[in-house]
Amino acid sequence: MAVIITIMAFELKTPATANWHGLQGRIPLLLVYILSFTVIGIYWNNHHHLLRATHRISAGVMWTNLHLLFWLSLIPFATKWVGANHARALPAATYGVVALGAALAYFALVRAILRANVDDDAIVAAIGRDVKGMASPVIYVAGCGLAFASPYLAYACYTAVSFMWLVPNRRLATSASQVR
Amino acid sequence: MAVIITIMAFELKTPATANWHGLQGRIPLLLVYILSFTVIGIYWNNHHHLLRATHRISAGVMWTNLHLLFWLSLIPFATKWVGANHARALPAATYGVVALGAALAYFALVRAILRANVDDDAIVAAIGRDVKGMASPVIYVAGCGLAFASPYLAYACYTAVSFMWLVPNRRLATSASQVR
Amino acid sequence: MAVIITIMAFELKTPATANWHGLQGRIPLLLVYILSFTVIGIYWNNHHHLLRATHRISAGVMWTNLHLLFWLSLIPFATKWVGANHARALPAATYGVVALGAALAYFALVRAILRANVDDDAIVAAIGRDVKGMASPVIYVAGCGLAFASPYLAYACYTAVSFMWLVPNRRLATSASQVR
Amino acid sequence: MAVIITIMAFELKTPATANWHGLQGRIPLLLVYILSFTVIGIYWNNHHHLLRATHRISAGVMWTNLHLLFWLSLIPFATKWVGANHARALPAATYGVVALGAALAYFALVRAILRANVDDDAIVAAIGRDVKGMASPVIYVAGCGLAFASPYLAYACYTAVSFMWLVPNRRLATSASQVR
Repeated sequence: MAVIITIMAFELKTPATANWHGLQGRIPLLLVYILSFTVIGIYWNNHHHLLRATHRISAGVMWTNLHLLFWLSLIPFATKWVGANHARALPAATYGVVALGAALAYFALVRAILRANVDDDAIVAAIGRDVKGMASPVIYVAGCGLAFASPYLAYACYTAVSFMWLVPNRRLATSASQVR
Repeated sequence: MAVIITIMAFELKTPATANWHGLQGRIPLLLVYILSFTVIGIYWNNHHHLLRATHRISAGVMWTNLHLLFWLSLIPFATKWVGANHARALPAATYGVVALGAALAYFALVRAILRANVDDDAIVAAIGRDVKGMASPVIYVAGCGLAFASPYLAYACYTAVSFMWLVPNRRLATSASQVR
Repeated sequence: MAVIITIMAFELKTPATANWHGLQGRIPLLLVYILSFTVIGIYWNNHHHLLRATHRISAGVMWTNLHLLFWLSLIPFATKWVGANHARALPAATYGVVALGAALAYFALVRAILRANVDDDAIVAAIGRDVKGMASPVIYVAGCGLAFASPYLAYACYTAVSFMWLVPNRRLATSASQVR
Repeated sequence: MAVIITIMAFELKTPATANWHGLQGRIPLLLVYILSFTVIGIYWNNHHHLLRATHRISAGVMWTNLHLLFWLSLIPFATKWVGANHARALPAATYGVVALGAALAYFALVRAILRANVDDDAIVAAIGRDVKGMASPVIYVAGCGLAFASPYLAYACYTAVSFMWLVPNRRLATSASQVR
């Protein structure tokens, strides 16, 4: 994930001119970059807590993990497209589709880990009801739809999901640090 | 391998226009991307199972490993070329040559690991007859040839190999999780 | 961080012509590259010593760590812009803003680690007063301001910070090697 | 180093046309890529054996390690330039300067490890006289000079160094596997 973040950073094209006007032209791209950085940072952090609390890795876990990586690897693509066309509906909706794919893949990863550790009460209790994991896809779907009304509504939805996740699942973090 | 995947993702050029027409023009590239992602994901997964079950690493293992990485590192190149010229024979055949090189390198890596662990019955039994490892190069060669009849036949061959590998070697996965 | 360094290296555009004149045109970019390489190398090295001496990682440590990565991930962007416009004030000041962000993020990371290990006398003593951590932001702010007088004064400030850091915190390095 | 290799692979520009003629135009770039891949693969392999046999890491080891990484990070730059101008003297000589820098940095790294482990007879004996480490810079210097007579003589020198290194230091590999 560090690589995905850096690749995105690499895509931050330098302004065409070396003055304030040139820098201003990069502000939309910079804002989407911050959003994408936050999204990937959240997955990274939660993914880290999740795998640390996990004792058994099945083949299913590995494949769902790759599936999550697939969607995350599309985020730089979506970021770049939105950054160049932030006022257009389709790039904004595409960003939502990619974010939705990642959210569903993360949800599936959590399920696969639960299946592989079904007899481990600690991890089952720690993951708990995973309300955020269920709410995120819904909000992303809403964002995709709203993009065709106004792309800025879509960005508001995506940002809302990020804020919702910024606090990691307290129970999981606690059990993880005990496991360590 | 995560890096190779991400570099490929980075090559997913954004559509020239911010509408459906622009997105459609990226569909061939996106499909080849999914194929290449699957190919690398399969190597990653099997490679992971393989090295986990391995107790001894010889210099030969390290060099065959680098050899495999060499061919995998050419996949983004082939992906990009096919993505831009999916209806042409030569890029399709080139993709097959790169995939063939990777398949032969993986086959050699398995042999090198077997040689380095010749007295370890568990790993010898786990790798077993490696039918897939022998079938893959044959299908890739067929794909290269068929590319000059129709590139789509070549893509069908490459996709068939991926489907064949999508289930990891059950015996190896089992012994690997015991080893853990 | 290895990735960030390599991405920057990748941005070293080859000279337009294959002669001395072409190579000369890349010298400013090469010098900024060396500065940025040193800056990231210093963070890498100190970060390595810091985390090695740390026994407890809290959620706060992880987030401040991501925050540091965010600013470091902008360094290739700033490097590229300065490399293409080394005689202009705004790129030089922007470089300073990014370096300032990284310095403040590192400072916050050190605080977060101290908070998480408040009862560990060894680490508290090892980090000590962190004079460099407090001096760096001040010098970077000075550099940003001086960039509008002359960008070369700004580069002098940034280089001075790097020289100041090139010797790692002796006490921390010592305690780290004992911990090992 | 995996990242450097992949970045280089990424720079393999796809042929301008989808036919044999287009592919032929990429052959010089592909050959330099194979040379650079081998060079980095050799450093990777020897570096791996070296660090595995090492018991103590000093600050000096870390800095010489970063210094080696600096020169290796310039190899993609040199590769790209040679690949686009393989018949010109200056790119060929520049490649040699970068390779020379890496060879000297590796030599310094070996010295730093020896200094940090001066009382460890096993590693001192394993590294031994390091004849290759001393011969490589000499051959690279010769290659840089010969580039101005004919770039192909320079490529012959660089290739000769790679062949010389392809067999890892047997004594070190042996002691490393015992250490394991």
